[in-house]
Amino acid sequence: MTQPAASAPFAEHPSGRAQPQPRSEFEARLRQIGAERYHDLHPFHARLHGGQCSPDEVRAWVINRWQYQSRIPMKDAAFLSRVEDPQLRRIWRSRIEDHDGGVDEGGGIRRWLALAQAVGLDPDYVASGKGVMAATRFAVDAYVRFVRDMPLLDAVAASLTEMFAPKIHAQRIEGLLQHYDFADDTSLSYFKRRLSEAPKDVAFGLNYVLDHADTLEKQDAAAAALSFKTDVLWAQLDALWNGYVEGNTPPGAWRPGEGMARAQAGA
Amino acid sequence: MTQPAASAPFAEHPSGRAQPQPRSEFEARLRQIGAERYHDLHPFHARLHGGQCSPDEVRAWVINRWQYQSRIPMKDAAFLSRVEDPQLRRIWRSRIEDHDGGVDEGGGIRRWLALAQAVGLDPDYVASGKGVMAATRFAVDAYVRFVRDMPLLDAVAASLTEMFAPKIHAQRIEGLLQHYDFADDTSLSYFKRRLSEAPKDVAFGLNYVLDHADTLEKQDAAAAALSFKTDVLWAQLDALWNGYVEGNTPPGAWRPGEGMARAQAGA
Repeated sequence: MTQPAASAPFAEHPSGRAQPQPRSEFEARLRQIGAERYHDLHPFHARLHGGQCSPDEVRAWVINRWQYQSRIPMKDAAFLSRVEDPQLRRIWRSRIEDHDGGVDEGGGIRRWLALAQAVGLDPDYVASGKGVMAATRFAVDAYVRFVRDMPLLDAVAASLTEMFAPKIHAQRIEGLLQHYDFADDTSLSYFKRRLSEAPKDVAFGLNYVLDHADTLEKQDAAAAALSFKTDVLWAQLDALWNGYVEGNTPPGAWRPGEGMARAQAGA
Repeated sequence: MTQPAASAPFAEHPSGRAQPQPRSEFEARLRQIGAERYHDLHPFHARLHGGQCSPDEVRAWVINRWQYQSRIPMKDAAFLSRVEDPQLRRIWRSRIEDHDGGVDEGGGIRRWLALAQAVGLDPDYVASGKGVMAATRFAVDAYVRFVRDMPLLDAVAASLTEMFAPKIHAQRIEGLLQHYDFADDTSLSYFKRRLSEAPKDVAFGLNYVLDHADTLEKQDAAAAALSFKTDVLWAQLDALWNGYVEGNTPPGAWRPGEGMARAQAGA
């Protein structure tokens, strides 16, 4: 396993055993991890939302971020597969429903492919995962396996990057609409929908972590899990930056011109 | 699992079933993967061997590459743990012995720490794994898990990047000796030793793969495994380049000045 580094505050108790942080203090600690490490701080996002990304940089982002999107329902299924409490399974299952949707209408990942189409990519190419950078796969796989292998509490804590997502989604919708022709209600439907879906997941997940991290050791592990997850997100943008902004595209990864949608008849 | 992309040559047989490639042709295919994708082609290595790396870039390489070195015996133990044939276990075990060595004298990973010391780092800091970039861990973990989860044939095939290692080790020894004051027989002992250790591993591994990949499907899987492994190595250097040559050091990663050895008494 990847061992996330934990920085443990240590509150000595008269009995000699470290006591857990009070609930509000522990929540503040989790939020501070987002304030310091969430990928809204990454320069790629400033570039994307500020309109400085070239069309091919946007495409590289859409292709690589697909790897993350497409693995989220698998990650949540890995979580479900380990939960003995049917009530927790029922609540958590809604995440899979949000992302996969129904056979006919699809869900979040199909909405991501609408974005792919809007930026000129062939949705089937994007859905195939071809051209995704190995570094992206390594980071995303690390997350899926973390959720599969680590204590349930840590797995839920890792999902809490969702706490910080509504802000970046709102910034993204505004920035993309302002700067890019492809942006409209259809192409951005993934982000718009997440604005209403994420809060219920966050409310549940945060309470779960605050309730179940009832020792300092568990709090430390939960904080380390959230920190690990910020690494998963950050590493994806570092790879994008190096591969497509700096132009150091690794072997086997998408090159501009590949995977484009065929011109529409009559277009 | 990470699904390495396979590019499958397709030889149609009169019976309608694809035939395996002849042994020599399949070996040439494996070697071609190295010629096109091995990390001797990465610009970081040209920079390192050509003497253009700053001391801190060398240190970042030593710190991050430790993550890879330190996981190799764990990777080989994961392989051993799945092998039913005691004779294969006996042969493969020598890899763990090369890297771990004995309790007193140590092995390859201890020699790596001699390099850490020579470049001014505290070997205990390097051995702790603190400061390793998340992207490095994700890539290395992907390799360990590949060997743990995938068919044994694919796991052996992934090890065949060793075929291409003696050349880069010789280049490295020559380049480091020429350009850097820290380079001497002690600090470079890891690479010198690998020059004699690697060939026996390669000879065994290559024959194993050529013998056991007896269908085209298995050959394709073995080629994909080797290609995956080149991705593991390449992604580590991409992360180094972005983090320390471009200066986009990710949160939590080593910063110059951290983890330095204390000055020797009298020095």
